[in-house]
Amino acid sequence: MRYWEDIKEGEVVELGSSTMDKESMIAFAREFDPQPFHTDEKAAEGSIYGGLIASGWLTGSTLMRLFYEGFLKDSASMGSPGIDELRWLKPVRPGDMLSARLTVTEKMPSRSKPDRGLIRSLMEVLNQDGEVVMTTKGVNFFRRRSGG
Amino acid sequence: MRYWEDIKEGEVVELGSSTMDKESMIAFAREFDPQPFHTDEKAAEGSIYGGLIASGWLTGSTLMRLFYEGFLKDSASMGSPGIDELRWLKPVRPGDMLSARLTVTEKMPSRSKPDRGLIRSLMEVLNQDGEVVMTTKGVNFFRRRSGG
Repeated sequence: MRYWEDIKEGEVVELGSSTMDKESMIAFAREFDPQPFHTDEKAAEGSIYGGLIASGWLTGSTLMRLFYEGFLKDSASMGSPGIDELRWLKPVRPGDMLSARLTVTEKMPSRSKPDRGLIRSLMEVLNQDGEVVMTTKGVNFFRRRSGG
Repeated sequence: MRYWEDIKEGEVVELGSSTMDKESMIAFAREFDPQPFHTDEKAAEGSIYGGLIASGWLTGSTLMRLFYEGFLKDSASMGSPGIDELRWLKPVRPGDMLSARLTVTEKMPSRSKPDRGLIRSLMEVLNQDGEVVMTTKGVNFFRRRSGG
């Protein structure tokens, strides 16, 4: 189990990869983001994107899964107060293999709660061509080994 | 159909509401965010949250659905380059009824692409007690009536 103390500023962690399946993309979009370029192949072909693309919320949720598997699972995670910046930089298309990388950019104790510390991290999502398709600058709380 | 020209700075739009179903919360979390306080009622009771809470990505995806239904559906939406700030302020629990409100905070033409304009908006998600549980400061592109 990794506590806040065990996480190092500057640390870079490869979070693994996930392939974007067309049916899952469409199913997610029908539930949460039914813009035609996310749900309808023909309409998407006629759109500015020239074909079906993933909802950015699916790309983000996929990143969350990779973040869990590659980092949070074995840590004393206490949740997140938010994201300081999120960018959708390139379209994500059916069959794309997304991989993610986390860099710890800042680490500080909580000012109000001695049982926990905060980390800020840059997460980058890349496709199979090495293009960065999404980035987040997020904040997460972790339990302190010494605290509480 | 609303184009960029039809959206007014300062405009406030009620986006509707959605009730958070426990089974849907758990199913989403199993797929995308399997932290125990999102997937396991008993484990959640023993966590800092004192009970099951929704993945922040589900709350965000639910907001996306409300944004679609209440704003994007009848607009000339051209997608989003990202979110300038996202905050998860309060836990979202099974049975919570979330409603959302959008305020247009800024409006400007695209510098590089004459067919579109940009809006910045604050979106607030409230629960049935009127507490703000999540906010986003997002950016969206819309086609210009006069452009392209």
